[in-house]
Amino acid sequence: MSEQGRQSISSRDLADYLGLNSYQIRKDFSYFGSFGKPGVGYNIKKLIKRIDKILKLDSGHKAALVGVGNLGSAVLAYGGFKTYGFDIVAAFDSNPKKIGRKAMNITIEDVSKIQSLKKRNIRLGIIAVPHNAVQQTADALVKAGVEGLLNFSPCCITVSNKIKIITIDIAQNLACLPYYMSAG
Amino acid sequence: MSEQGRQSISSRDLADYLGLNSYQIRKDFSYFGSFGKPGVGYNIKKLIKRIDKILKLDSGHKAALVGVGNLGSAVLAYGGFKTYGFDIVAAFDSNPKKIGRKAMNITIEDVSKIQSLKKRNIRLGIIAVPHNAVQQTADALVKAGVEGLLNFSPCCITVSNKIKIITIDIAQNLACLPYYMSAG
Repeated sequence: MSEQGRQSISSRDLADYLGLNSYQIRKDFSYFGSFGKPGVGYNIKKLIKRIDKILKLDSGHKAALVGVGNLGSAVLAYGGFKTYGFDIVAAFDSNPKKIGRKAMNITIEDVSKIQSLKKRNIRLGIIAVPHNAVQQTADALVKAGVEGLLNFSPCCITVSNKIKIITIDIAQNLACLPYYMSAG
Repeated sequence: MSEQGRQSISSRDLADYLGLNSYQIRKDFSYFGSFGKPGVGYNIKKLIKRIDKILKLDSGHKAALVGVGNLGSAVLAYGGFKTYGFDIVAAFDSNPKKIGRKAMNITIEDVSKIQSLKKRNIRLGIIAVPHNAVQQTADALVKAGVEGLLNFSPCCITVSNKIKIITIDIAQNLACLPYYMSAG
């Protein structure tokens, strides 16, 4: 809406758009202070800034990818990260044939260089390595100061509970479909 | 536990394992009838069968993949589907160089052959094509009788509301991390 030049939106319009009710919208926002004006609604640009700040998406985030196979290459080519202020700025692989090559303008580095992430102030890691290398990759990333991990492997990772892990289990997502299909 | 030869489990042990409380476990199961015996617990093999049936995962499901690029290839190589009784049995691409080739024992077919899915009784589709081809791919799959779609593209798909879509937005998942990292 902001891109379309629209200035403000009411909680009712926002609720319709999101499939929620307007009372819920107002109540949720109120937890974070005063957002809109009664009868006027929310200023869209300010609202975006406030929400970005609440979700810690206002500062820009650098991420490192480990594993530049099919999945890792797809992640690098994936355009959606910019929307959230994310930038994949480093990529690592253990295959000597890949090291030194460029993928989406990023030079692939040897996994032994993961320790350099601390100095480079990169706190997010994306793990796209084969199952049997997931735990050692997680360990190396955590040792290098990474505090958040995005993991595509359904196997369990054991790390300190200070580290936040989000696992995308593709099969589990697919497995949800038959239930809803039959329910319809 | 079943693979380890264990016969039964109490709601308390199950609750501990899942990070829930045992009352919730018993209550949830009770919605679907009688599962366990007081003082004995649940027979593990029977429990697995019952849950598979509830989740419609007992019959085996065939899925078709459209788009055998980096992401599609990663999906094909992904071992996790078997756990849920899923089998990717067909793969389509629009690139003439890929058509006829084998990927993980599946011969890649021309996207124009998607219509054959109806006869082949394949009701699940996995969309791993570039953003600009997502909608037309969804349309072709739905026309071929597919009722459930797994989509990796953050762009919106417009289809009949009888069709169930699950979208895996990789960037959105990554974007959740900073919030939780800061919260810790």
